[in-house]
Amino acid sequence: MSRFWSDIVHRLVPYVPGEQPALAHPVKLNTNENPYPPSPRVLDAIRAELGEHAEALRRYPDPLAKGLRATVAAHHGLQPNQVFVGNGSDEVLAHAFQALLKHDKPLLFPDISYSFYPTYARLYQIEFETVPLDAQFTICVDDYLAQNRPNGGVIFPNPNAPTGHVLPLADVERLVAGNPDSVVIVDEAYVDFGAQSAIALIDRYPNLLVVHTTSKSRSLAGMRVGFAFGHADLIDALNRVKDSFNSYPLDRLAQAAATAAYEDHAYFESTCQRVIDSRARLVASLEALGFEVVPSAANFVFAKHPQHDAATISAKLREQEIFVRHFNAPRINQHLRISVGTDAECDTLVAALKAIVA
Amino acid sequence: MSRFWSDIVHRLVPYVPGEQPALAHPVKLNTNENPYPPSPRVLDAIRAELGEHAEALRRYPDPLAKGLRATVAAHHGLQPNQVFVGNGSDEVLAHAFQALLKHDKPLLFPDISYSFYPTYARLYQIEFETVPLDAQFTICVDDYLAQNRPNGGVIFPNPNAPTGHVLPLADVERLVAGNPDSVVIVDEAYVDFGAQSAIALIDRYPNLLVVHTTSKSRSLAGMRVGFAFGHADLIDALNRVKDSFNSYPLDRLAQAAATAAYEDHAYFESTCQRVIDSRARLVASLEALGFEVVPSAANFVFAKHPQHDAATISAKLREQEIFVRHFNAPRINQHLRISVGTDAECDTLVAALKAIVA
Repeated sequence: MSRFWSDIVHRLVPYVPGEQPALAHPVKLNTNENPYPPSPRVLDAIRAELGEHAEALRRYPDPLAKGLRATVAAHHGLQPNQVFVGNGSDEVLAHAFQALLKHDKPLLFPDISYSFYPTYARLYQIEFETVPLDAQFTICVDDYLAQNRPNGGVIFPNPNAPTGHVLPLADVERLVAGNPDSVVIVDEAYVDFGAQSAIALIDRYPNLLVVHTTSKSRSLAGMRVGFAFGHADLIDALNRVKDSFNSYPLDRLAQAAATAAYEDHAYFESTCQRVIDSRARLVASLEALGFEVVPSAANFVFAKHPQHDAATISAKLREQEIFVRHFNAPRINQHLRISVGTDAECDTLVAALKAIVA
Repeated sequence: MSRFWSDIVHRLVPYVPGEQPALAHPVKLNTNENPYPPSPRVLDAIRAELGEHAEALRRYPDPLAKGLRATVAAHHGLQPNQVFVGNGSDEVLAHAFQALLKHDKPLLFPDISYSFYPTYARLYQIEFETVPLDAQFTICVDDYLAQNRPNGGVIFPNPNAPTGHVLPLADVERLVAGNPDSVVIVDEAYVDFGAQSAIALIDRYPNLLVVHTTSKSRSLAGMRVGFAFGHADLIDALNRVKDSFNSYPLDRLAQAAATAAYEDHAYFESTCQRVIDSRARLVASLEALGFEVVPSAANFVFAKHPQHDAATISAKLREQEIFVRHFNAPRINQHLRISVGTDAECDTLVAALKAIVA
């Protein structure tokens, strides 16, 4: 607290990211990282950019990330002017809130959702209303239609976080079509683990923005690269904000790494499939221990045990250097969000849980 | 232009960074990059972080950049809680505008200065007034004192950009002391090439914020790492904004690279000295061709030729793949800003200029 702070700083409620424990070998299932390293091509691309003396690093990176944007556009069947790139999908979302979701009517998002959304809204002084998920954690599309609930924008993750619940593409389309005067952002950080992307709808809906990240399915959380896909007018707005904020948010090695990750489609598909297979195995093990598990299309599962307090379970796991995420929030404070690790990591977790719930 | 844009997007005037030409061997003296590669320790540190399979990249980086902040704090004789780190000094400045410079009274900065400042002010809807430099491009301290010109904050580069002109530390202190109720930001991107840093004043002035970058004197423009130094309350404000925007703006390799660059003080000193020596040589050559050169304490010089139009000179140089920066702005549209390259690059430039002004 200081008299030098602007008014906005006093009102902020900063986001708290999942813990990054400084331990040699934690079983780290708390921040939805990929259990597998990035494609070997990523390492090759970084080494090539470094050269013999890292001499390229003295030069600014391409502020437009043209190479990366062209690669990712081609991958998704889009034009480069339909692609925005930022420093992780968190930076992309921040710019999108300021550029596209700040209007006279309130922004809508689910009551159980990515906990960064209300933080962004406060940062940019955007009025918002949360819309309750139903008892099964499903997004009820009718609650978001402009005719039922006038709004200045809608944002939701699909699959949703932290539930893993997926909204079918037909429902996503009905929600987008039902808000012709508002931007609808579909935050698809986890889409590659079992959902259909709304990118297929972009050419038909000028109000649709789809956000992706390389942090999950492409194993590059450490390199901070995210994207938005949408009509060129929406991308233009994001670029105008970005170029009024920081011309070069992606360094040279991040651009090289992300480009290489998108070029290795076979590796991407095989690691996604491994995570999906491990998820099925983990869900079966948890259910065998009496956990109730929300059906997940993400690289995490959301589970509760009818007889055991979630915060207590989390604390006991932590004593064994096993990290999962517990949100002390209404409706979900008896759930744990557990990232899908390797089968070995999941086995360690399940063995520890077995002792705890015994 | 789109009905989906927020009001703020319509009003933005994005910053235009210097051109990054896609040529094999340009003589690139337009964006004040260092002509020398980063310390060899930077390459070692990046390789160590990558390991054999780049496996660390699947994990999020440390959101607090604790190792980097500790290293840089120790280097400057500060505590880690007096150090903020961001994605280049541009991101640091953006957060500082929002967190510390948005108040009821207008922000002040020089009329000739870093052209990103008015862009930030528009992004955050901060009222600002520009204060004219004198005819020698000197900042007149009296014009910025609260008693003479009530203000909600002051920001200026020292050495100034694009002039290279330096304000002595005693004058900086008088300006900071004369604004006890406003934050004064001294943007020291170029300080290591011949100016005294205001970091020495931090423990005495709780309203002082000093901004640094690794892009110039540490040859890491390609890696996007910048800092703010100041009272812990000011740093706290920046962290609150950062943690409401993007938890992890610095990737793993950027943190490793910047830490290594600060650890190699001998390399840093020797490359700075080489640039300073080359600057003296370049100034002498330009003066021999009839250019008037502003005394520079930066890694660039600001020069005009009494008989030749600056835009024309710049265009003729460009035809030869020699890039310098021309600002089409009042009072300086007859000047060129020329980065100090290697002696060989400067010789190429001088030879070309000799033919142009002959």
